[in-house]
Amino acid sequence: MRLIIDTLGGDRGCAATVPGGIAAMKAHPEISLIFTGNEADIRAALRAADPSGSFGEPAVYTVPEEGKQPPRIAIVHAPEAISGEEKPSLAVREKTESSMLRGIQLLRSDPTCDALVSTGSTGALVVASTIGIPRVRGIRRPAFCPILPTMTGGIVGVCDSGANVDITPQMLVQFAIMGSRYLEGAFGVRNPRVALLNIGTESEKGDALRKAAYPMLQAAPGVNFVGNMESRDLLSGNYDLIVCDGFAGNILVKTTEGTALELLRKIKKDIYSRRIYQLGAFFMRKMFAEQKEFLNYQNYGGSVLLGLDKIVVKGHGSSDEKAVARCVEQALAMQQSNLNDRIKASLEALKALEKTTEEA
Amino acid sequence: MRLIIDTLGGDRGCAATVPGGIAAMKAHPEISLIFTGNEADIRAALRAADPSGSFGEPAVYTVPEEGKQPPRIAIVHAPEAISGEEKPSLAVREKTESSMLRGIQLLRSDPTCDALVSTGSTGALVVASTIGIPRVRGIRRPAFCPILPTMTGGIVGVCDSGANVDITPQMLVQFAIMGSRYLEGAFGVRNPRVALLNIGTESEKGDALRKAAYPMLQAAPGVNFVGNMESRDLLSGNYDLIVCDGFAGNILVKTTEGTALELLRKIKKDIYSRRIYQLGAFFMRKMFAEQKEFLNYQNYGGSVLLGLDKIVVKGHGSSDEKAVARCVEQALAMQQSNLNDRIKASLEALKALEKTTEEA
Repeated sequence: MRLIIDTLGGDRGCAATVPGGIAAMKAHPEISLIFTGNEADIRAALRAADPSGSFGEPAVYTVPEEGKQPPRIAIVHAPEAISGEEKPSLAVREKTESSMLRGIQLLRSDPTCDALVSTGSTGALVVASTIGIPRVRGIRRPAFCPILPTMTGGIVGVCDSGANVDITPQMLVQFAIMGSRYLEGAFGVRNPRVALLNIGTESEKGDALRKAAYPMLQAAPGVNFVGNMESRDLLSGNYDLIVCDGFAGNILVKTTEGTALELLRKIKKDIYSRRIYQLGAFFMRKMFAEQKEFLNYQNYGGSVLLGLDKIVVKGHGSSDEKAVARCVEQALAMQQSNLNDRIKASLEALKALEKTTEEA
Repeated sequence: MRLIIDTLGGDRGCAATVPGGIAAMKAHPEISLIFTGNEADIRAALRAADPSGSFGEPAVYTVPEEGKQPPRIAIVHAPEAISGEEKPSLAVREKTESSMLRGIQLLRSDPTCDALVSTGSTGALVVASTIGIPRVRGIRRPAFCPILPTMTGGIVGVCDSGANVDITPQMLVQFAIMGSRYLEGAFGVRNPRVALLNIGTESEKGDALRKAAYPMLQAAPGVNFVGNMESRDLLSGNYDLIVCDGFAGNILVKTTEGTALELLRKIKKDIYSRRIYQLGAFFMRKMFAEQKEFLNYQNYGGSVLLGLDKIVVKGHGSSDEKAVARCVEQALAMQQSNLNDRIKASLEALKALEKTTEEA
């Protein structure tokens, strides 16, 4: 697998993206990398991450030649970054030479490139990927699917978590199909239990969108639909995949992260308010460290953009080296599971069903 | 203030609603109560809550006579309950003799009645109140506004949290007006900072609804609009009121409650996993008790339904005696602050502005 890493845009830049990529490459010899960003900074970070130079002198990226093996590490000098503050549609139009846009261009044009990992602007990545990368045949909109830890030690995916704010019931069914195949393929979840995010569990709950989607999800082949879910049960472990529009999904994911972090912050502050609490916390330090680790999104990889012909993974803006390595491994798992072939097969089954229903 | 308490539908029935009402009445002599529910159960709970019989023998409710003071406590025998499992629209049509519906009927028809508190089905209460109680002149839809504690020791309101799932930008402006007047009147928040729940803080973020509402909120008189808010910042203390559609608001509130409770539950479970953690927790028991108390929604009263001519407060289904007493006190604060007059004044100002803009 040849994977492009956008080294800019995240909070830590090359300091996280370069060693993260190298760590994943060392663990998985089948990976080769292209770094886009500031060439001098990338070279410096590479020397620090791989002092023995085990992968040889990194090459400047060139268009691949027939029959010639591409280098393990290549660099594209594209020192411009897109920040999260910029308007995505504008940034994508104007910053065509940025590290992110150059990465997307390579992903599209170079057949040896399979995937891209970026920790930069989410909005710009969605716009650029949607415009630049062809969709899986039949998919209306690509969608984000981040993975969260459940309180029972498992995981739960949320699709879509922010790529699409105005959607149709048909798109919710596609999110269910894409997310199910992703959880099966990349995480080995068998027959993922899919729930529709709603304001109550009864089948007739919700707005027009939810009411229309419910029976369609029930009928969709390859979707193990278990009904509506209330947001308070996200981490309960009773569901493997939550489908929702990107607006609600964004609120669901960010509220969960935000509340957990705010609460831990408050506990920490409270501990420092009294000596006796500090004493107690001393005995519990291992437990608190585990809690913090459990809630650390860095451990759960990035949010993949499902429905594109090539793999795009968005890491958190504050991703560290470990988080970037996880993102790279996630991309590898997606490729190795032939995710898009599975999605296509499910779409075919859905289409066949719709045809039969129409004819009947 | 004469207030109706629906004693059924909540998890604890009379055991919470009756003593809760009596506790509030004892603290506030200006309150008189009507209990709807099973008469025998109500009488038994009254004897337990007020063994000295300080309010006299409770009367059966009768239509008020001209010039005659209504009794401090009256009872309406309506033993049928509406459960949260039932379809609200169906329950409201069929269970007209239930404790909740009889309460709403009284609230509408009896001019001595000012308010109703119920811990029963949220959906049924919204439908019954919307149909049964006239709206404040000019208000398109009543909306829920629960109050949550912030991490900085303050409070934040969320309007709407679930009464309206399909809405317009105009309604969001009305939610901002109603919520602002409520926070000022009932909680003494000066010039409440209003934010629009969105998937990013930039002004152009969100779906069609949010994009249309943003400039309207900026222009609305009596609304101190501070911009978009991301859900992770709900408890930050930077905002006093969050406006949103009922679908997103429901997710926001329930995810916050759900995550906090799940996390505390996990900490508790982890503590019991090792002796040394139990020792540590012993030193920190006061802190954990405070955390639990801080997160206990029972302390923050119910969710009021704003925009109705009379006061309707929805308590949590699991409300205990204390929570019910808070709901009653909340209704009292709303009445004493002349909430609806404040809302009407703001609507007039908005109308005047719209007229000026049209003429210009």
